[in-house]
Amino acid sequence: MELHEKLDIPREKLDDALEKFNTRTYRDKEYRHIPDYRKNIEKGTVIIDEEVVRGWPKIPRTLNLENGIQNFFDQEFLVEEKLDGYNARIAYIDEIYAFSRSGIICPFTTKKSIEELNPRDFFEEHPDLMICGEMIGDKNPYTRHQYPDINGVEFRVFDIQHQEKGNSVGIEKRNELCSEYNLPLVSSYGIYQPNDSVNKIREIIDELNTHNREGIVMKTLDSENQLKYTTSSTNISDLEYAFSLPFDYGRDFMFRRIIREGFQSVEWRETRGERKERARQLGEAILLPMIETIQEIQNGGKVGEEHTVKGEKETVEELISHLKDMGLNLRIDNRKEKNGEIEIDFTKITNSTNDKTDLYLDGHPVRE
Amino acid sequence: MELHEKLDIPREKLDDALEKFNTRTYRDKEYRHIPDYRKNIEKGTVIIDEEVVRGWPKIPRTLNLENGIQNFFDQEFLVEEKLDGYNARIAYIDEIYAFSRSGIICPFTTKKSIEELNPRDFFEEHPDLMICGEMIGDKNPYTRHQYPDINGVEFRVFDIQHQEKGNSVGIEKRNELCSEYNLPLVSSYGIYQPNDSVNKIREIIDELNTHNREGIVMKTLDSENQLKYTTSSTNISDLEYAFSLPFDYGRDFMFRRIIREGFQSVEWRETRGERKERARQLGEAILLPMIETIQEIQNGGKVGEEHTVKGEKETVEELISHLKDMGLNLRIDNRKEKNGEIEIDFTKITNSTNDKTDLYLDGHPVRE
Repeated sequence: MELHEKLDIPREKLDDALEKFNTRTYRDKEYRHIPDYRKNIEKGTVIIDEEVVRGWPKIPRTLNLENGIQNFFDQEFLVEEKLDGYNARIAYIDEIYAFSRSGIICPFTTKKSIEELNPRDFFEEHPDLMICGEMIGDKNPYTRHQYPDINGVEFRVFDIQHQEKGNSVGIEKRNELCSEYNLPLVSSYGIYQPNDSVNKIREIIDELNTHNREGIVMKTLDSENQLKYTTSSTNISDLEYAFSLPFDYGRDFMFRRIIREGFQSVEWRETRGERKERARQLGEAILLPMIETIQEIQNGGKVGEEHTVKGEKETVEELISHLKDMGLNLRIDNRKEKNGEIEIDFTKITNSTNDKTDLYLDGHPVRE
Repeated sequence: MELHEKLDIPREKLDDALEKFNTRTYRDKEYRHIPDYRKNIEKGTVIIDEEVVRGWPKIPRTLNLENGIQNFFDQEFLVEEKLDGYNARIAYIDEIYAFSRSGIICPFTTKKSIEELNPRDFFEEHPDLMICGEMIGDKNPYTRHQYPDINGVEFRVFDIQHQEKGNSVGIEKRNELCSEYNLPLVSSYGIYQPNDSVNKIREIIDELNTHNREGIVMKTLDSENQLKYTTSSTNISDLEYAFSLPFDYGRDFMFRRIIREGFQSVEWRETRGERKERARQLGEAILLPMIETIQEIQNGGKVGEEHTVKGEKETVEELISHLKDMGLNLRIDNRKEKNGEIEIDFTKITNSTNDKTDLYLDGHPVRE
């Protein structure tokens, strides 16, 4: 198959499409990837050794659970937990690689997912498939959500897809493969019908919310249609994080999470008291982290995204140089070695918040 | 003087500049105006009968009162109240007109400012000057802030400028002219020095905040340099209004007001308890109006910007057709006549909030 066919675009559009790809190198291997959303090609799509690794699609979200389910599904669907970590696709090319959401090969994720999944047998028998899932746990370079009993990173599979075309093998086959190769799946809440499931699913959301978990993905059994819904605790913790770096996070990112709170409160038919409590949490999530950041910068500090990673020395050092190669401004905050493993706390210094906060504290006039 | 000189641009740039102007008609008189921010010409600048009416400049803001004052001013400055109404410039061309911030001649504002200011003598003796100020009170088609004892609209002068060049006559001359022609000035808090004024000015802000008033403008005595600072109560009430129409207000508008709360809390050295109280107010200002709007749309209603105007029948009717000519979707909610005056409640229906909220309530998936 020719490259344009693998990418599902007409031959005459190939050159234009290739211009949208960035070229990168991973351990002397050159590859190309689409870092952001484009019209005809999935974000995160990779070309490597003339093979294509299809990007993970954006899953649509509903702001109203009841009507969303009824309008979106006309058949039974599976409800699974949506985890708060980072998306990774594991594929075998000349060796096994882990690709980030935007199609970058991450040495840390590659190493950890091989350790976690032990996927050599899987790829030997299914070299044309890829394992799609979430890397969770708070010791990673990208996200910080803590899960109980996870003291490092772990991988959870949510789909198995054909590597080049991105079509799912479907739920049944996915479950069989995960069972056969001992790949850990995300938690499932079972199969529901569109018309009489909303109360049950709201209970699931409330339960997840109580435990500060992110939400659910609902999907048809062929996995072709998926719809997501998230908890208030996730909105709130996303806002806390975003407002701790207010000039670095997108205003759309903040706005969307605020809006979700309004729609949920209405659908949940909350009392006046419950609404005021939700408002209090929202206000604190916005204001208090921002104040801490302003004070830290006022005291001469620098803020950024703080992460901790641990692993073999070689893996951790390769990760740090990988992140520096990506252009990140890293500050190593702490480093300790134990039992041949190394653990590093580091901060990705984010310039806008540091620079703008400094200016405004200094009384620099804002012309808006 | 030729037109390009009046606009302060080189002759060869005139054609380009003229393309940025919109053409409108007011009672058969054609005029042109700049509706938004442009590089070389002030927003709101008007060309009418080959005369120029200079736009009102954007006043820079500080997020830190102490450092802002010390960095911005190197000489004494006047502190005046910043009022929460709408900006109007009154100028005499072939007759007296009131221009909105974006340079539109408003029939209502024209009528009311002539009634309020009675400026014929002023313009007879000073036809090259214009009166710049704020129209306040809650019975107007643009803003809704209520002031005690104002039961309609009133005008407050904050500057008198040369109509074509936009340079101020300065504080002293302004005060003389206002006194001579009986033009009501904004409230003044007196003259301060940059180095020892911040505590006093913070007290003014706290006092204004307690009375839900907007803030202050600080200006050098020639009025050439101005700096503004606003109260928390204004941030909060702006946010309440914006989040009652969440998909119509700009995300930057919301974000900036949230950020101001953080900087003020830090500069005010608030206690943990005061911060939590500020956060509660912020959260309620964001969430509760949004919930009311979602519920109103869920119940089949339509939301928008609600205003009340009153005045002579002719004035009010001319205003309503003026607003319709501007492309606004108006709904007349109530209309009553008394003593020859007419009072109309109307709503400017804002499409985005109505349309998007409807879609999302319906479960329409969001692809973000």
